[in-house]
Amino acid sequence: MFKEVEQQSPHHVVIVGGGFGGLYAAQTLAKAPVKVTLIDKRNFHVFQPLLYQVATGGLSPGDISSPIRAVLNRNKNTEVLMGEVISIDPKQQTVKLRHREIKYDSLILATGVSHQYFGKDEWADKAPGLKTVEDALEMRRRIFIAFESAEKETNVEKRKAWLTFVLVGGGPAGVELAGALGELAHGTLKEDFRNIDTSKAEIILVQSPDRILPTYPPHLSAKAQQSLESLGVTVRTGTKVINIENNLVTVRQGDIVEQIPTRTILWAAGMKASGMANILSECTGAELDRGGRVIVNPEFKVPEYDNIFVIGDLANYSHQDGKPLPGVAPVAMQAGQYVGHLIRKQLKGKTMRPFHYFDWGSLAVIGKHAAVVDFGFIKFSGFLAWIVWMFIHVFYLIEFDNQLIVMIQWAWSYFTRSKGARLITTPGEHPIIQLEDDTDVQEPVKV
Amino acid sequence: MFKEVEQQSPHHVVIVGGGFGGLYAAQTLAKAPVKVTLIDKRNFHVFQPLLYQVATGGLSPGDISSPIRAVLNRNKNTEVLMGEVISIDPKQQTVKLRHREIKYDSLILATGVSHQYFGKDEWADKAPGLKTVEDALEMRRRIFIAFESAEKETNVEKRKAWLTFVLVGGGPAGVELAGALGELAHGTLKEDFRNIDTSKAEIILVQSPDRILPTYPPHLSAKAQQSLESLGVTVRTGTKVINIENNLVTVRQGDIVEQIPTRTILWAAGMKASGMANILSECTGAELDRGGRVIVNPEFKVPEYDNIFVIGDLANYSHQDGKPLPGVAPVAMQAGQYVGHLIRKQLKGKTMRPFHYFDWGSLAVIGKHAAVVDFGFIKFSGFLAWIVWMFIHVFYLIEFDNQLIVMIQWAWSYFTRSKGARLITTPGEHPIIQLEDDTDVQEPVKV
Repeated sequence: MFKEVEQQSPHHVVIVGGGFGGLYAAQTLAKAPVKVTLIDKRNFHVFQPLLYQVATGGLSPGDISSPIRAVLNRNKNTEVLMGEVISIDPKQQTVKLRHREIKYDSLILATGVSHQYFGKDEWADKAPGLKTVEDALEMRRRIFIAFESAEKETNVEKRKAWLTFVLVGGGPAGVELAGALGELAHGTLKEDFRNIDTSKAEIILVQSPDRILPTYPPHLSAKAQQSLESLGVTVRTGTKVINIENNLVTVRQGDIVEQIPTRTILWAAGMKASGMANILSECTGAELDRGGRVIVNPEFKVPEYDNIFVIGDLANYSHQDGKPLPGVAPVAMQAGQYVGHLIRKQLKGKTMRPFHYFDWGSLAVIGKHAAVVDFGFIKFSGFLAWIVWMFIHVFYLIEFDNQLIVMIQWAWSYFTRSKGARLITTPGEHPIIQLEDDTDVQEPVKV
Repeated sequence: MFKEVEQQSPHHVVIVGGGFGGLYAAQTLAKAPVKVTLIDKRNFHVFQPLLYQVATGGLSPGDISSPIRAVLNRNKNTEVLMGEVISIDPKQQTVKLRHREIKYDSLILATGVSHQYFGKDEWADKAPGLKTVEDALEMRRRIFIAFESAEKETNVEKRKAWLTFVLVGGGPAGVELAGALGELAHGTLKEDFRNIDTSKAEIILVQSPDRILPTYPPHLSAKAQQSLESLGVTVRTGTKVINIENNLVTVRQGDIVEQIPTRTILWAAGMKASGMANILSECTGAELDRGGRVIVNPEFKVPEYDNIFVIGDLANYSHQDGKPLPGVAPVAMQAGQYVGHLIRKQLKGKTMRPFHYFDWGSLAVIGKHAAVVDFGFIKFSGFLAWIVWMFIHVFYLIEFDNQLIVMIQWAWSYFTRSKGARLITTPGEHPIIQLEDDTDVQEPVKV
């Protein structure tokens, strides 16, 4: 039976995006009588929940990445293609890459999100976000150049600006980044400098809503804020960023407008769906929500197209509890599995139970020894929460790599971060040229 | 006594360069009644003998680097400064950085070497060398883009060019790189592609002398060549590269001139001293050798200046056996220690035994399970040699980090390279744009 299907040229599933959604879909289809092609712009999968560790010098990019080919190389029905989809023709059932066209029978789009600046794109260079490995390396470069520059700066005002870090956004990403930065300044780097006291660094987390981690229960938000404060982070809730210039952030809290001189501004606020959503919308008329995400039906399909699926952060799935599912890894994984199974069932002419997202809970880590956990039935914080956070991250890491070794490697790195990956690297030969000329430091790296 | 010395403003030793020479000098001076300032362009020390592992995706930059501040943070008499020395005034006893001047009592220059193209600087973009972390990442990018492009290429000729790798230079660096590349193509990547057989990749090591590893005994050169060939590397000795164009290397062997179409050319041939040698020569009249290295006296001093020392790859030290000491890590380490001790003795008005380089021997590793070792009294090759190589590398790594953990971390990575750090990264957002447009692929990354 399987052989027969193969001979009549098997059903071709094209997956765009090698994040959690795409990889889980591919894994679910590994033994199905289909041909799978996974297309990604990058040759590697990134474990995004740990990107902030790369940005703060705790882990190397290689520690949190796996080559997509290596993850899928045992799936004999699967081909991996490094490339970028530039258009879709839903009538002809093709996706177009720069130099070729690929025909599909089913199409799964899972290209995720990037950060956005709420219409203030000019802020992007001044306040880099954290979605790719390159973003993380750029953050790392800025953070460590700030300490190096402070060490050399003799002017008190200027030194203070180098030692002031403003983080915009108090969701899990901003909170984890702030915690890691607090730990860096107050612990890891403490002995390394002679002219500055890194524990005097000001780390300011600016959050527009009235509490951080607003999707968590209020008492966990309070715990998280306490933990951050114990790491020397100043948490400013109810505070809106109204302008970002070079070396200056303007915030408003109630009626009070304030300017904060700083050389390092990090962005962990807005997300918008990747460009794929617009491509799809143009080709199929699919409706997008305010964040640019594709509004999908209960089977993750684009209305009117029975064979185009959108999953992960790219999708707005509002068929459970009425509000959209959150943009987190477990949602993408479960959607990837669901769509994989759905395609298998449909090929056999069977139906599938409706999708139901099982919420394992929410986690955020604050520094090295504290976290907050919300499993719905149980909510807790502190060191135990941190252990749980470790365990769950490890679990999902090895799910792909299937190698305890990889887990051990980054656990080591994590525990021993005192000697971590604190490299200031740039593609040029002489990064110091940028460092010493103050006005150039905040210029972003461009190819 | 110590206190007294401190009060009358202690002897100031300025060290330029945080490689093996500079760090060993700093460590030797850690408890001396002097003030030490170590200046480096970078904020981290790189364990250069393992850079080829980064270039071939086996290790991450963070695995083979240590922040200089972290290495030296227990030395309370030592200050680290990230900066670039642009001139020296030996009369005033100052070094000049971009924005400041620093007065020294003793100056130790240890800025090492970079690669050179024997006057053919236009080859640099087409055949990147391997001296910095950025170099290694650029090599890694090109190597993995070559396999990705071959997988997509349908034209047989073009595909062959993507699967042809030409390495120029059969010294230890070229041999180790060729071995790692052979292993990658014939082992690690074997299962990852669907349209190409990576074990069909041609890896050509071009060596101008009549054998590889010419500084080793002939029978070890032969062993090394055998090991490389068993990893699928074609070794072409007595072959000179006479031209490098985009996608084409021209070589001459005797009277025969041949053109090799290839998309990936890697340079492991010439070395020249860093620009510091020229700066020094201009300021002090110090004589340079053909490789641009500073010719030093038996105490590593620049003639006529009793307080300027040059060590490591930057120095030409010919007072032992008449020929210059080789440009390897142990020479730099021992010179750093010697000069450190010499300064301590001189401060006490004592003399110092003459320098004698103790040669522990030579090592080169070929792939994962073979190496050649020449300890002088014993020469051997194969797996045992590889174990010795591992042990010695580990020994020197932990000498700085003083942490078994770091060793374990990269040993893990090394043993489990099947899932290594094979990331194609560029500072831009869309590396694929370069990948898909063939003509752009070989353009170097520029800031």
